[in-house]
Amino acid sequence: MSHHPKLKPVTAPPELLAALQQQFSERLTTRSAILERHGKDESFHPGAPPDAVVFAHSSAEVSTVVRLCQQYGTPIIPFGTGTSLEGQIAALYGGICIDLSQMQQILRVSVDDLDCTVQAGVTRKQLNTYLRDTGLFFSVDPGADASLGGMAATRASGTNAVRYGTMKDVVLGLTAVMADGQIIRTGGRARKSSAGYDLTRLLVGSEGTLGIITELTLRLYGQPEAVSAAVCPFPELRAAIDAVIQIIQLGIPVARIELLDALTMQAINRWSKLDYPETPTLFFEFHGSQRSVTEHVEQVREITTEFGVTDFRWAVHEEDRNALWQARHDAYYASLALRPGCQGWPTDVCVPISRLADCILATQADLRSSTLLAPLVGHVGDGNFHLVYVLNPEDPAELAEAERVNTRLVQRALAMGGTCTGEHGVGYGKLPFLAQEHGEEALAVMRAIKQALDPQQLLNPGKLVPL
Amino acid sequence: MSHHPKLKPVTAPPELLAALQQQFSERLTTRSAILERHGKDESFHPGAPPDAVVFAHSSAEVSTVVRLCQQYGTPIIPFGTGTSLEGQIAALYGGICIDLSQMQQILRVSVDDLDCTVQAGVTRKQLNTYLRDTGLFFSVDPGADASLGGMAATRASGTNAVRYGTMKDVVLGLTAVMADGQIIRTGGRARKSSAGYDLTRLLVGSEGTLGIITELTLRLYGQPEAVSAAVCPFPELRAAIDAVIQIIQLGIPVARIELLDALTMQAINRWSKLDYPETPTLFFEFHGSQRSVTEHVEQVREITTEFGVTDFRWAVHEEDRNALWQARHDAYYASLALRPGCQGWPTDVCVPISRLADCILATQADLRSSTLLAPLVGHVGDGNFHLVYVLNPEDPAELAEAERVNTRLVQRALAMGGTCTGEHGVGYGKLPFLAQEHGEEALAVMRAIKQALDPQQLLNPGKLVPL
Repeated sequence: MSHHPKLKPVTAPPELLAALQQQFSERLTTRSAILERHGKDESFHPGAPPDAVVFAHSSAEVSTVVRLCQQYGTPIIPFGTGTSLEGQIAALYGGICIDLSQMQQILRVSVDDLDCTVQAGVTRKQLNTYLRDTGLFFSVDPGADASLGGMAATRASGTNAVRYGTMKDVVLGLTAVMADGQIIRTGGRARKSSAGYDLTRLLVGSEGTLGIITELTLRLYGQPEAVSAAVCPFPELRAAIDAVIQIIQLGIPVARIELLDALTMQAINRWSKLDYPETPTLFFEFHGSQRSVTEHVEQVREITTEFGVTDFRWAVHEEDRNALWQARHDAYYASLALRPGCQGWPTDVCVPISRLADCILATQADLRSSTLLAPLVGHVGDGNFHLVYVLNPEDPAELAEAERVNTRLVQRALAMGGTCTGEHGVGYGKLPFLAQEHGEEALAVMRAIKQALDPQQLLNPGKLVPL
Repeated sequence: MSHHPKLKPVTAPPELLAALQQQFSERLTTRSAILERHGKDESFHPGAPPDAVVFAHSSAEVSTVVRLCQQYGTPIIPFGTGTSLEGQIAALYGGICIDLSQMQQILRVSVDDLDCTVQAGVTRKQLNTYLRDTGLFFSVDPGADASLGGMAATRASGTNAVRYGTMKDVVLGLTAVMADGQIIRTGGRARKSSAGYDLTRLLVGSEGTLGIITELTLRLYGQPEAVSAAVCPFPELRAAIDAVIQIIQLGIPVARIELLDALTMQAINRWSKLDYPETPTLFFEFHGSQRSVTEHVEQVREITTEFGVTDFRWAVHEEDRNALWQARHDAYYASLALRPGCQGWPTDVCVPISRLADCILATQADLRSSTLLAPLVGHVGDGNFHLVYVLNPEDPAELAEAERVNTRLVQRALAMGGTCTGEHGVGYGKLPFLAQEHGEEALAVMRAIKQALDPQQLLNPGKLVPL
């Protein structure tokens, strides 16, 4: 179900390629190694190479490509860094990939307004490096050094979302090229507005199916005066999650609360040569003034002690914190190393926090009755968690088992009032679950919007909206 | 321009009224006093009564009315409490008003998840009264005791938005009746989701033109352990605004920062028999733990002292705070009382905070060269401010002058990268400014969405999207 082949190759006609060649010369390529890389993301989902890749440098150039593709009825797939996880960039129907990674200009930063405007190919690390001396930072951190356009298109979030919000919250405005080639500007620089339909948030999370994001105005935050992190091993999983619920209910503004299960702790100990206890563990980070960080840390220490934690390890110095978060961000590679030669299929659900313990425990019970190896990590302050199925991709039985377990996971999350994806998006991997999550009536509204804005169905076809 | 007459009466046919009568019996009314009240909001914009009002009790009933109206090509106008400010409820083309004010059930509250689900007619005060013993509260406070459905439809915000966000941020999911009568559910109870188009945020702020909101799932916050308020008179306006900019830049999480100009202070002193200094003044509220509130208050006191404040008045006790905020919320009525017998035309813009001082000072210079009386208040932490033009509605010259000044105000805000409305919405009062704010290309996208979801143009016609 989640392993589409390339569905219906619509080969880009030679006339289109010739027209693009004329406009973009060496910035148009049909070299197969480049096509392959542009059709395959970091997920387990099979890729599908586009017919050609164009490296665009401006909204006007994106518009030119879109108008030409419209003329020839050829699909268009936007590409940032290729770090999506549900097959978002696969050219399922062939077509032209518009690579925005060379659109790397930081157009404007306003320290007074805590915002900036960037081209879509700027990555989050590039932006934060640029911002270092301004006293500001960009908060959304999905792990990968993704492009900001791609992060907006998939409504990314990550470890900081519990405190600072997701892309939905930090994108103030967009420039986007629509299916007819028109360049629109949405939102603006005011902190809030009630002036018309919220096109910004319609485009955020639309995965290139309604328009191609070319520039973004983003909300920034002041770098916290004090930062402190802690590692907190729990005797068992439910205690860890119950501690999180209490922290969230008390409104303690923790910047990060990450859960790693015992298997993941084992994996990162091996991978990063660490000696953490191999039990369910919370990683915390606190941001604020010296005083407020001290206060919040004390509150969290009290709560976690109540839930059986005896070994609360600090990481106050920047290098210790960086080592800690590097270990967390490496969890995916550490997990894969548990079974050398295997590949990872990451998955993602999100449930109301009151159901998080039930959802995770039922999932782990399911995994115990399976042969699958599947470490678990979670942005638990949001009720969001991931599994990585560590698989031998040559073994159809393992694939089928992962698909079975994954379907049960998603249905469990939906039954608990949750969503089939908290942050990875739909792509084509989660497409089969949208009707169940939203109902046919809401899906019909999504289809009507897609039809109205992309009547020829050329923008990233086969993704996000089940036809 | 902002004083439309009823444009093109489409009288509801007797067959429709008979069919509605049969379904709703005494919950259908055509009594003229009730029609008048349902066509006129709290703004200065002329009203236009609907042909009939139906009091609905459920999503299914709303769907029934919508299907019948579709059958007869009759416009449909949703109604909550009638407290809108840009003519949102005026039946400009006649039609059936669906009054949702009797849909007052609080369907579910989850203390663990800090969320609840309510029918659209529940008001914010009703919800907060209900929540009092749960330790939670609903944060959005636009002043009026509006219905939550109406607040979502107009993307309301108010005094707490600087800390807790606007309706865009706190609405997690909706039930809505679409133009074809289908009942859809959007969003959900997970804290975040990347599963498909964000229909929730498309409907929030759509002012009944895309669908009728019948139920809402809302994010709640824990009641703060400690609350403290302060009144801070400044020697002059720019100093007050510069202090706000510094507070926001330092990330001090103030719950409320309200600006009142000297004229408004004079008005509330008279109205509420208070003795505040009659200079530009900031009202603050701080929420948090005892320690963090103390810390934030100290920081703010230091900053305001730097900007020339010598008299920082506290309101720590609940009754003093209530008196203070009551005075703030009464500013509108206090302003009207400056010219007995006159009416108020409230207006609303929002700019990037770095431009706020310039925008307000230029506006006040404009007012000094005008005969208009127009007190100013602002949710300045968001860059949002309001004027109330206090007018003799019988004097065409005064009306014309208010229109001239208002147009200049909006254009000034737009030129500074702001928006024509921070929180009141478009209705028909701000309709003429949408093209200038968003550009014709983005407006074409809004029109395409409207056309796709309401092809007969029956949902609240004449509002939000210029035809």
